[in-house]
Amino acid sequence: MAEFGIGLDLGGTNLRAAAVDRSGAMMDSVSGSTAYSEGREAIISDMVKAISTLRSRCSSGDLAGIGIGVPGFIRMEEGVIGNSNNLASLENFPIRDEIGKRLGTSVILENDANAAAIGEQWIGAGKDVKDLVLLTLGTGVGGGIISNGKIIRGSLGMAGELGHITVVPNGNPCGCGNRGCVEKHASATAITAMAKLLGLGDSLSSKAVYDLAMGGNQKARTIFTSMGESLGIALAMLINTFNFPLYLIGGGVIDGWDLFAPAMIEETRRRSFTYRASQPRIEKAALGNKAGLFGAAYLPLMKQ
Amino acid sequence: MAEFGIGLDLGGTNLRAAAVDRSGAMMDSVSGSTAYSEGREAIISDMVKAISTLRSRCSSGDLAGIGIGVPGFIRMEEGVIGNSNNLASLENFPIRDEIGKRLGTSVILENDANAAAIGEQWIGAGKDVKDLVLLTLGTGVGGGIISNGKIIRGSLGMAGELGHITVVPNGNPCGCGNRGCVEKHASATAITAMAKLLGLGDSLSSKAVYDLAMGGNQKARTIFTSMGESLGIALAMLINTFNFPLYLIGGGVIDGWDLFAPAMIEETRRRSFTYRASQPRIEKAALGNKAGLFGAAYLPLMKQ
Repeated sequence: MAEFGIGLDLGGTNLRAAAVDRSGAMMDSVSGSTAYSEGREAIISDMVKAISTLRSRCSSGDLAGIGIGVPGFIRMEEGVIGNSNNLASLENFPIRDEIGKRLGTSVILENDANAAAIGEQWIGAGKDVKDLVLLTLGTGVGGGIISNGKIIRGSLGMAGELGHITVVPNGNPCGCGNRGCVEKHASATAITAMAKLLGLGDSLSSKAVYDLAMGGNQKARTIFTSMGESLGIALAMLINTFNFPLYLIGGGVIDGWDLFAPAMIEETRRRSFTYRASQPRIEKAALGNKAGLFGAAYLPLMKQ
Repeated sequence: MAEFGIGLDLGGTNLRAAAVDRSGAMMDSVSGSTAYSEGREAIISDMVKAISTLRSRCSSGDLAGIGIGVPGFIRMEEGVIGNSNNLASLENFPIRDEIGKRLGTSVILENDANAAAIGEQWIGAGKDVKDLVLLTLGTGVGGGIISNGKIIRGSLGMAGELGHITVVPNGNPCGCGNRGCVEKHASATAITAMAKLLGLGDSLSSKAVYDLAMGGNQKARTIFTSMGESLGIALAMLINTFNFPLYLIGGGVIDGWDLFAPAMIEETRRRSFTYRASQPRIEKAALGNKAGLFGAAYLPLMKQ
């Protein structure tokens, strides 16, 4: 009777859940859209339904518990989302205990970027190390830090906000109040904005800019070089701070790896003597958009 | 019979040692100059002599062991200094085991900035927390990071090199290969350099610049404001990364606290939403230049 965890990833538009056994094999999964606009009860009901469906389908196994990854800051002791950009209706509500009560099993909440880092360290690109930093490049830039096998969470679950590392002190303004955050210079949104500034198009997707660059458009290539340099400034800082053996880059934008990675590595090498002395690996994450799902499923397995 | 540790701090020009009991009371201390130019055997002999002197003076107590703080990167498992700017003769030599053999007791090596962070967390400004970052502002800028009561060391003992956080991407060049490192914009050396650039004097000490500023010199005041802003950029990044409850500023330059702290706090507040949301403390370190000595003495007491 295989022991397994159920992970749920509550993304911006999608809800996905998977049953994963201790070896990291996905036994079953479900997905659907999340009805954010319909409020808390609808969201919770969707989550409980997805988990219940998986549990009944996997009833021959031994369920260790439920892990849930959400975009927001988690107060772990309370099992509460303190702050979330797109889940306002769930903030400061005892969601962990409510879902646990409805399902009659233990639930662990985790920040989605942290869950992705846990997934990568469990069965992804970081499975051979105990210390790593994950940067996820998507609409924004997220981060997760694992030190000695454990997530660094900070006092309000707000640690790992690596997208807001300053890489250009007087750079693009950010909603966080800062200027020149790495996520304003090295995310999908930043690529679109740079393309507009260069007159390539008003709202080109990062994929469209990538295609232009691959087709030889020099302006489009410059965008990826600039993005790589910004990432290099942030990585140099992270390497000097942590001296970890592994730094992973994940998220949808890594499809452009070949275009931005050379500038990123060169900038990191130039700026970080710790990089030059210790030669840490800077690599693509391995689990794609399933990292958070695997990480969430692993949460209850870690605890046992 | 009180249990105590002997800490030794091998500074740039001074060697200091102290016997400290478990309550943090200093029982006895010795100090002297270090004969770096005379090579390895002379340095080791001075260290062993200082420790032996203290041990015989405190012979009524129960010695838990020896802790040694050195300026350099420590490979903990081997007890070896991998790299040090001013202790080249000790690099890659089994110094921990050699000193342990001569003294017949256990020895623990630690980086000096890490030892200072340990001291502050034990009996200094951080004694009520388990997570803190220490920045020491002196000739350069050093750092130590304590997460869940333990120093983050990294794979080659090079973690916590916070003086090399980039605060001005095209700023002053640094010996590490980077440009705009916070230590090139917010150390005693940086203050002297800025004073020269402003025509205040060719090689004014940071203390002399401080006195000018306190006397109303606007250029001198600008130097401390600039320094505060640079520190704020670095602190905002550290706060967004760690979400710890406490950030300590130590080192000789904190005498200028009243001149640089307002700009530092304001810049941190503006740049870090985690600062605004979690209101961590940003405070002066409490143990002055004895933090590393206390921290070194605590190393053997921690282990037991």
